[in-house]
Amino acid sequence: MEEEVVLLDAWASMFGMRVRIALAEKGVRYEYKEEYLIKGKSPFLLQVNPIHKQVPVLIHKGRPICESAIIVQYIDEVWNDKNPIMPSDPYEKAQARFWVDFIDKKIYETWRKMWLSEGEEHETWKKELISIFKQLEEILGDKAFYGGDTFGFLDIGLIPFYSWFYAYETYGNFKMEAECPKLIAWAKRCMQRDTVSKTLPDQKKVYDHVLAMRKALEK
Amino acid sequence: MEEEVVLLDAWASMFGMRVRIALAEKGVRYEYKEEYLIKGKSPFLLQVNPIHKQVPVLIHKGRPICESAIIVQYIDEVWNDKNPIMPSDPYEKAQARFWVDFIDKKIYETWRKMWLSEGEEHETWKKELISIFKQLEEILGDKAFYGGDTFGFLDIGLIPFYSWFYAYETYGNFKMEAECPKLIAWAKRCMQRDTVSKTLPDQKKVYDHVLAMRKALEK
Repeated sequence: MEEEVVLLDAWASMFGMRVRIALAEKGVRYEYKEEYLIKGKSPFLLQVNPIHKQVPVLIHKGRPICESAIIVQYIDEVWNDKNPIMPSDPYEKAQARFWVDFIDKKIYETWRKMWLSEGEEHETWKKELISIFKQLEEILGDKAFYGGDTFGFLDIGLIPFYSWFYAYETYGNFKMEAECPKLIAWAKRCMQRDTVSKTLPDQKKVYDHVLAMRKALEK
Repeated sequence: MEEEVVLLDAWASMFGMRVRIALAEKGVRYEYKEEYLIKGKSPFLLQVNPIHKQVPVLIHKGRPICESAIIVQYIDEVWNDKNPIMPSDPYEKAQARFWVDFIDKKIYETWRKMWLSEGEEHETWKKELISIFKQLEEILGDKAFYGGDTFGFLDIGLIPFYSWFYAYETYGNFKMEAECPKLIAWAKRCMQRDTVSKTLPDQKKVYDHVLAMRKALEK
C-alpha cells in the first residue's frame, strides 16, 4: 500500500509511542519526523496542530489527525485488514476507551506533580501515582492482555508508560515490581511483541531525557 | 426492544444532556434517575462510577458505562438501526472526536474559572471562553450541522452548552449572538429537532441553578 503517511513525534513521548505501535501492528510504512520539544515548537507542529500544539500528529494524505487515542482509532479504522486494535463488542470497546481516557487524565499529570514537588507534597503525588497503577493492575486481573488473549487498544494505551517506569521509580524511590507485580508481568508479555519492543526506548535513556528536561526547566 | 436501560444523570448537566439526546435520537426508552449533586453524591453514583464519581452514567443490562462521549458512541454502536450519530468516514470521525474532546477539555473549565474569578482574571477567562466558541464557530463554517447536512456526534457534543449560554452571558456580560452569530443560528437549527428541544432545559432555569450552586459553594 503506497500511501502518504507522516508521523510528527518525539521519541520519548508515551503518546507518540502508542501511534508507532499501532502503525507497526498494521504494518504501515511512514515517514518519521522528530520534534525536538526542548528546543521549542517547530513551525510545522504549529501548522498541523494549532489547537494543542502537541505531538504526536499523524498526517495521512496531507490531512493531520491529533490526539493519540483518536489517532490509534483512526489507524484501526483505515487499515482494517489486519490485527484489529479495538474490541468488537460495544461494551468492551467502551471500557477500553474509558481506561485509556483514565490514563490520559491521570498518569502524566500525576507523575509531573510528583517529579516537580518535594517533601509531603511529593509523597502525596507518589502515593497517587502508585494507586493509579494499582487500579490499572486490578482491572487487568488474571488476563494475559487487557483485551483478554489479544493485544489491543488498552494495551497500546498503557504499555508506552513502561519505558518511563525507571524514571518514576528513581524519582519516587519505589519499585514497580514490588508495588504491581502483575502489571510488570503484563508489560513483559507485551514486550515479547516486536511492535512493542522495537518501539519502546530503553528505560535508562528515558531517565537521562527526564534529567535533561529538568535541567532545561531550571534554566 | 425491551432492554434494561437506566440513566443516572443531573438535569442541568451538559454531559448528561448529550446522552439524553443520543437516546432520544435512537428512540430508546429508559429509566431516568436524578442525581442531586448539591446534596452530595449518592451511594448509587459511587457504586456505578467509583473512578470519577460523576454523572452521567448509563447502565445497560446491569453494566455501567461512564464518560458522556464514550456513552454516546456506545449508544450509536448498540442501537445501530437508525439515525447514525458517528460519521462513517474515518477522517470525519477523527475530526468529530477531536472537537468533542476539545469541548470536554475547554468549555466547562474555562466557564468555571470565569464564574469564580473577579477583575482582570475574570476578563482573561471571559476572553478565553469567547475565543473557544469562536473556534467552534469557525470550524462549522457555512455548514448546516457539524456533520454537514446531518445532525451528528459533534452537534450532540456541543448543543447542550446552548442551555448554559444565558448564564455565560450574564456572568460574563457579553452576548453570544453578537460574538458568534453563526453559532447561534446553528443552535436554533438544532433546536428544531425534537430530540434536542425536548432535552434542553430553559436557559433561565439553568441560570437559577447556577445561582443556587454559587450560594451552596459560598456556604
